[in-house]
Amino acid sequence: MKWSQTLIPTLKEVPVDAEVPSHRLMVRAGMIRKLISGVYCYLPLGVRVLQRATAVVREEMNRAGAQEVLLPALQPLSLWRESGRDKVMAEVFYQFTDRRQKELVLGPTHEEVITDLVKTGVSSYRHLPLVLYQIQTKFRDEPRPRSGVIRSCEFIMKDGYSFHANVESLQRTYRTMHDAYHRVFERCGVQVVACEADTGAMGGRLSHEFMAPSPSGEDTIVRCSVCRYAANRDAAACVSSVKAPVAPAAAEPVREVATPGVSTVEQVSRLLKVTPKQLVKTLIVEADGAPVAALVRGDHEVHLAKLARLLGVASVQLASAEVIQRLTGAPVGFAGPVGLSGVKIIADASVEGLIGVVTGANRADTHLVNVSIARDVRVDQVGDVRYVTGEDVCPSCRQPLRFEQAIEVGHIFQLGTRYSERLGLTVADETGRVMPVIMGCYGIGVNRIVASAIEQRHDEQGIIWPRALSPYDVLVAQVSAKPEAVALAGRLQQELEAAGYTVLWDDRDCSAGVKFNDADLIGIPVRIVIGDKGLSRGEVEVQPRGDREGRRAVPPDQVALEVKNALDRGAMAPVA
Amino acid sequence: MKWSQTLIPTLKEVPVDAEVPSHRLMVRAGMIRKLISGVYCYLPLGVRVLQRATAVVREEMNRAGAQEVLLPALQPLSLWRESGRDKVMAEVFYQFTDRRQKELVLGPTHEEVITDLVKTGVSSYRHLPLVLYQIQTKFRDEPRPRSGVIRSCEFIMKDGYSFHANVESLQRTYRTMHDAYHRVFERCGVQVVACEADTGAMGGRLSHEFMAPSPSGEDTIVRCSVCRYAANRDAAACVSSVKAPVAPAAAEPVREVATPGVSTVEQVSRLLKVTPKQLVKTLIVEADGAPVAALVRGDHEVHLAKLARLLGVASVQLASAEVIQRLTGAPVGFAGPVGLSGVKIIADASVEGLIGVVTGANRADTHLVNVSIARDVRVDQVGDVRYVTGEDVCPSCRQPLRFEQAIEVGHIFQLGTRYSERLGLTVADETGRVMPVIMGCYGIGVNRIVASAIEQRHDEQGIIWPRALSPYDVLVAQVSAKPEAVALAGRLQQELEAAGYTVLWDDRDCSAGVKFNDADLIGIPVRIVIGDKGLSRGEVEVQPRGDREGRRAVPPDQVALEVKNALDRGAMAPVA
Repeated sequence: MKWSQTLIPTLKEVPVDAEVPSHRLMVRAGMIRKLISGVYCYLPLGVRVLQRATAVVREEMNRAGAQEVLLPALQPLSLWRESGRDKVMAEVFYQFTDRRQKELVLGPTHEEVITDLVKTGVSSYRHLPLVLYQIQTKFRDEPRPRSGVIRSCEFIMKDGYSFHANVESLQRTYRTMHDAYHRVFERCGVQVVACEADTGAMGGRLSHEFMAPSPSGEDTIVRCSVCRYAANRDAAACVSSVKAPVAPAAAEPVREVATPGVSTVEQVSRLLKVTPKQLVKTLIVEADGAPVAALVRGDHEVHLAKLARLLGVASVQLASAEVIQRLTGAPVGFAGPVGLSGVKIIADASVEGLIGVVTGANRADTHLVNVSIARDVRVDQVGDVRYVTGEDVCPSCRQPLRFEQAIEVGHIFQLGTRYSERLGLTVADETGRVMPVIMGCYGIGVNRIVASAIEQRHDEQGIIWPRALSPYDVLVAQVSAKPEAVALAGRLQQELEAAGYTVLWDDRDCSAGVKFNDADLIGIPVRIVIGDKGLSRGEVEVQPRGDREGRRAVPPDQVALEVKNALDRGAMAPVA
Repeated sequence: MKWSQTLIPTLKEVPVDAEVPSHRLMVRAGMIRKLISGVYCYLPLGVRVLQRATAVVREEMNRAGAQEVLLPALQPLSLWRESGRDKVMAEVFYQFTDRRQKELVLGPTHEEVITDLVKTGVSSYRHLPLVLYQIQTKFRDEPRPRSGVIRSCEFIMKDGYSFHANVESLQRTYRTMHDAYHRVFERCGVQVVACEADTGAMGGRLSHEFMAPSPSGEDTIVRCSVCRYAANRDAAACVSSVKAPVAPAAAEPVREVATPGVSTVEQVSRLLKVTPKQLVKTLIVEADGAPVAALVRGDHEVHLAKLARLLGVASVQLASAEVIQRLTGAPVGFAGPVGLSGVKIIADASVEGLIGVVTGANRADTHLVNVSIARDVRVDQVGDVRYVTGEDVCPSCRQPLRFEQAIEVGHIFQLGTRYSERLGLTVADETGRVMPVIMGCYGIGVNRIVASAIEQRHDEQGIIWPRALSPYDVLVAQVSAKPEAVALAGRLQQELEAAGYTVLWDDRDCSAGVKFNDADLIGIPVRIVIGDKGLSRGEVEVQPRGDREGRRAVPPDQVALEVKNALDRGAMAPVA
């Protein structure tokens, strides 16, 4: 392909609204252009990369035995009412009525539609297991679209769904998908970590996120420094490295101290000259409407979802100021566990047994000191109800943890029967008994594969494509305008294409400097330079992207071999 | 692929809402399922066919030098206001506002977005010509979705757009696309006729529709019985085969006759004992607001778009009863051209010179007889302002025309500067002068390729796929349940796949009758039957779909060769 016959509008300027490298580079390399906030046009270079990523995903899904379907974006809202997700998803729905006054939404995901579809044709355990997937456009009215195509309102997802007669079958398919996901990302040159994850609005019991480490990621993952344990910070179990009392064991009596107008952990610790660890926070929440007090250390953060799971309730929300006043007799900021009645008290495991700590006094402008949890507090239940911190250790091997930012590129779930029960997808088992089908679901953000590859593989000058995603294998930078140069460029393009490589020939009427900068920017693995000097010596230059040392001057006849060597070496290109 | 591991829910029953064969067969063959009116899920068999059609389209577009892009479905309504199409397209828009109160529509087409996009990076004639295309999902809130995927609300379109510095360049690309379209449809086994077409809401001067003849088609095309002339009935020029006066030439004076309560052509001709051809209808219309009278013969139909073109106005609409009463002094149904003043009178060419005809008298319950157009009517302009009929002849060679129903599978347009002018897409020419870019656009309905192939190739039993679209090349119908049959089916699948064929192995636990019926229904070109009798003779049966005479019993070792022969012959399979 000649550059002059396609549309690759590279930019020198950094787009003002682009904060992360992949966004900047995709715009500058002429891969994408914004139409409106969170909605992007893909230009020819962008489409080529997207298609390569799509092809890898499709191959691995087919290899894993999944069957491709194609479901509509237009979905009836009534289906979401049936599944009970109309409210929880309303936040991201694009919703409207058609000319027949039917309430429609644009599909942000397809559990409902596929569950409904599979009712056609699946009625016996003998039809199972069944694994279906699609590669299709999703729509989400994101509160904060950002980072280019990483969080956008219209994006391409591979979403797969599996259907089973028993849990063992689900677990087998889950493992198969887990492995297929690793192959997808490895082939696309994206490093990922499979993390234990929260199931969120999707529901179900077990899920793993595939996280691509990158400073541009929105998520924080927690990894063991020794073993393979990894989890999303939102899902990581807390195992404290210290279990000892935080203050001297002298069991002095509880005492009130005046803390006028001082209620935050920072303010109280400063006033009372203790560390935040010597405080115990009392958070009043409503668990499915019933008030609950949750105790965590001053340096910890309560995790409402963990609290909900521990309590076995559907939702936990912060209590209103009125409820807090009524329960504690004090304004917000002075709640404490000592003498607190009419409310269940849950203590995080790290609070259990603490001695000599500071708590609220259930009285305005007052705190208690010398509180001993075991002696002074009626704890109803102890559990893990906080976010993990750097002082916690690996739940598997008790070694230190490290924290890292990452981009979620895939997410797999063991859904169970949540959707099949509500939407009536059942099969008869061997004995004729009718039972709900057990389901799993499996998502990959295809655009995010592309963005993550760039986040992990770029330098100051531009993108460094892994060969599997590169829009072309070879760039012919024809910097000499001599007729021999044009002829040679044409000949090399033909030869390389005949050898199975894809070639972009930069035939533009512009300076060598512009061509070299653009070549670095768009990041094609191998560049062939046809310049005046080389021509006079009967040579062209073959240069791997991201490897200045790998530059070779060779006669035109050796170009194909040199390209092969460079591409083989290029599989090892550095990660930024 | 084993049938038991995929989802092909065939049906014996004909779906109640399916009126045309392709709709019935796609549902019965388990290719599609309706989600809501005009919105379909594609199941595995449907996706495979859709992907094969898509691949052919993509190959031919790439071969024609077009570059693939991917544009969003979410579009700002403001762009449509800029192009001036917000009102004319409002009818089919799905329209809504996002959380940022931005007015959005789902793209029914992409002229606006691509014109806006190409402004990035194209500023000089040297960047042109440029041809871009995408294969992407379109959304139209159809008034009457019908015929399954032929007229649906969510569908896949290949839409291409070309950009030029001069008209000659547009014409070259138009011809290239014209040829590429013929190759696409030929490769997909769909017979098409390229027809002169109306440009409609798209605008521009010249367009061709690619029409697949089928009794299920919504469109009527007109073809010459001798030469290659073909046109959509809506666009066909009228050349009458008769030009003589329709009544005896005796020039009797005009006379009023009472026609109480009788105003339609049928009623008047019956009452006055003349044929509809001896009547001249006078239609009062408003052309950009100004009243105009159009005269056509009683057996003809006025063509408002032709009238608008002849008058050089943007829109022609039927006048209201009030306007008609005011202009003619008579109620609707009695307008006539004799003595009509204050209005431009346009006569269709077939009316010119008529003698002794009946017209309205501009008086209630009254008509005129013995009207001679030349003598009695002040005609301001004569032209082609009616729909073609079976009495017209080919405008090219004056031979008889024939009419046929057809499905529009493609449409190409020479748009000119309509979009570039309104959206500000300009380039500098050789002299530095800034000029609007000249555009073309090129659409193919991918789902309609599939439906049209079925419409043209099916029998009572089911689909007869052309090989290029077939979901699999070979169906192995394993009707014997013996272990040898299972082993042989597995072996044949492996061998045929190794030879490059795609194979569906019907391994279901059901009767031979069900398997044979389903095989005919899903229409895979070659069926291999492994039955008890054949096995005992060391033979399997190889049978081309739609060719009972082509059945062969062969030893397993000769299957691959026989499959090759059958597929080669199958290219000639009959068209229904």
